[in-house]
Amino acid sequence: MKVVVLAGGVGGAKLADGIARTLPSEDVTIIVNTGDDFEHLGLTICPDLDTVMYRLAGVANDETGWGRAGESWRTIGEVAALGGPDWFKLGDLDLATHLTRTHLLGEGESLTAVTHHLCQKLGIQVSVLPMSNQPAPTKIQSGETLYDFQTWFVQEKWQPPVTQVVLPEDVRATRSVIRAFETADLVLIAPSNPFVSIDPILNVYPITALLEDLPKAVIAVSPIVGGQAVKGPAAKMMQELGLPHTSRTVAEYYGERIDGFVYDVQDAGSCDDLGVETCCLNTMMHNQADRLRLAQEILAFARDMLEH
Amino acid sequence: MKVVVLAGGVGGAKLADGIARTLPSEDVTIIVNTGDDFEHLGLTICPDLDTVMYRLAGVANDETGWGRAGESWRTIGEVAALGGPDWFKLGDLDLATHLTRTHLLGEGESLTAVTHHLCQKLGIQVSVLPMSNQPAPTKIQSGETLYDFQTWFVQEKWQPPVTQVVLPEDVRATRSVIRAFETADLVLIAPSNPFVSIDPILNVYPITALLEDLPKAVIAVSPIVGGQAVKGPAAKMMQELGLPHTSRTVAEYYGERIDGFVYDVQDAGSCDDLGVETCCLNTMMHNQADRLRLAQEILAFARDMLEH
Repeated sequence: MKVVVLAGGVGGAKLADGIARTLPSEDVTIIVNTGDDFEHLGLTICPDLDTVMYRLAGVANDETGWGRAGESWRTIGEVAALGGPDWFKLGDLDLATHLTRTHLLGEGESLTAVTHHLCQKLGIQVSVLPMSNQPAPTKIQSGETLYDFQTWFVQEKWQPPVTQVVLPEDVRATRSVIRAFETADLVLIAPSNPFVSIDPILNVYPITALLEDLPKAVIAVSPIVGGQAVKGPAAKMMQELGLPHTSRTVAEYYGERIDGFVYDVQDAGSCDDLGVETCCLNTMMHNQADRLRLAQEILAFARDMLEH
Repeated sequence: MKVVVLAGGVGGAKLADGIARTLPSEDVTIIVNTGDDFEHLGLTICPDLDTVMYRLAGVANDETGWGRAGESWRTIGEVAALGGPDWFKLGDLDLATHLTRTHLLGEGESLTAVTHHLCQKLGIQVSVLPMSNQPAPTKIQSGETLYDFQTWFVQEKWQPPVTQVVLPEDVRATRSVIRAFETADLVLIAPSNPFVSIDPILNVYPITALLEDLPKAVIAVSPIVGGQAVKGPAAKMMQELGLPHTSRTVAEYYGERIDGFVYDVQDAGSCDDLGVETCCLNTMMHNQADRLRLAQEILAFARDMLEH
């Protein structure tokens, strides 16, 4: 079974890791949101790609979910002392990723090629693809203010209420991304924020059309558990956008784009009559055993769907 | 006595420090070579400015002469692990300078304003000025190959023989640099490499004309001691350019641009009949006491010249 995972940051990285440790590496492609990439201190920073890579490489920081294990903060501490901006916490090890990426992009390599290079150096065997080689910045409209994504997300700690998520026009998928959809049996939408992690991927032309036409099954995993986001602003955004902050809302939001929906046992029964196959699982991933178990259970659900 | 010091890297920084600790800070301006600045890993790096700033701030690495004391190398080690270029040794503390500078330049500030900002944060009270706000890259012709300066200097360890130093055209001094010359009683050419540290400054329009017209005295300090460069490629370059590698050659090279010449006691007597005032001193600066002593002795020589 060839699987494509659409992933944003922390939750997406965890499920991607479970899938990567369950299936043969040649059968797994992780397509990652780059809508929250930005230029900062001269560097090209790709937070979701990094979170996915660090998790898959086994060097992720388990406490924060982002950044690297055993991280230190000497450089960013000195940036603060020199009156530079330190609101985006760049660790000393993490910085090496941004410096190397920025260097390779400056040499004319594509983001896809640079990501491949970094994955090889980090010992990652599954395929990790940015959704596009083009910049595709997500912006957040809050009342009169249009925020750059990281300004809203990190600097403002996602507190300004979201009026609208503004996605760019005319972003195109890479050939590698299109090829991954063409050969996929299953597309898994990871338990990432639907509005700022998954929608930016679906917004890339022609991913929505490919999703509709090609894979035998599309299954989304709810990032909402017991009415709360496991991490990040998903539930808060739903409220601000006038939606109930429930798993059911997530399933309805994806609508006809999905064939199956996985949601947490805490919400058992709430998604029964949606017209898609549903599967109620313990979706919390506290450690690697959880990630493996959830991946295996989701793949069992998928196999069942594909066989019937 | 208002003093302008023209400085390159290590030797220039040391003499600048001695002068800065001897005179009232409002009387001292250090004009620094930016010909070896370069873009690397996405960052704007100004090696001579940094060497001067770190020395004046008392945070310089005394062993290497460049970089910061108490430096660590976590990020650049990881860059190497990720297959990025690590030939330019960027320490964790040093990186903070490049990140902050690159950020501020990206905000539209001039290199002069950014340098002023960094100096303030580092507690430096004398004025430190880049020779220009424009990029002014020095290049090294070696036979058929034209090297970027840092490629030749650091990556190739200044081994490819120098056929010619190639300086850019149409680089203009800043208003702050011009004002410093206008009010200077004395211009001191630090014991820096004449070809790749001082010539790039003299090449900036209209610095050579200002030097000729304005200050009451121009004194150069020889970077050659006993036929060797105290540090770096000056002596090797002289050989390759067909010049005797002596202090006398340095004085002759500056020619009519200088009124006085300071050279080392090891070379006593070798520069007597040059038609400029000369002063034979112990020019080696192993520590702060040496820097202070040499600065005081040079200033005494200058005062003597100015009074007669």
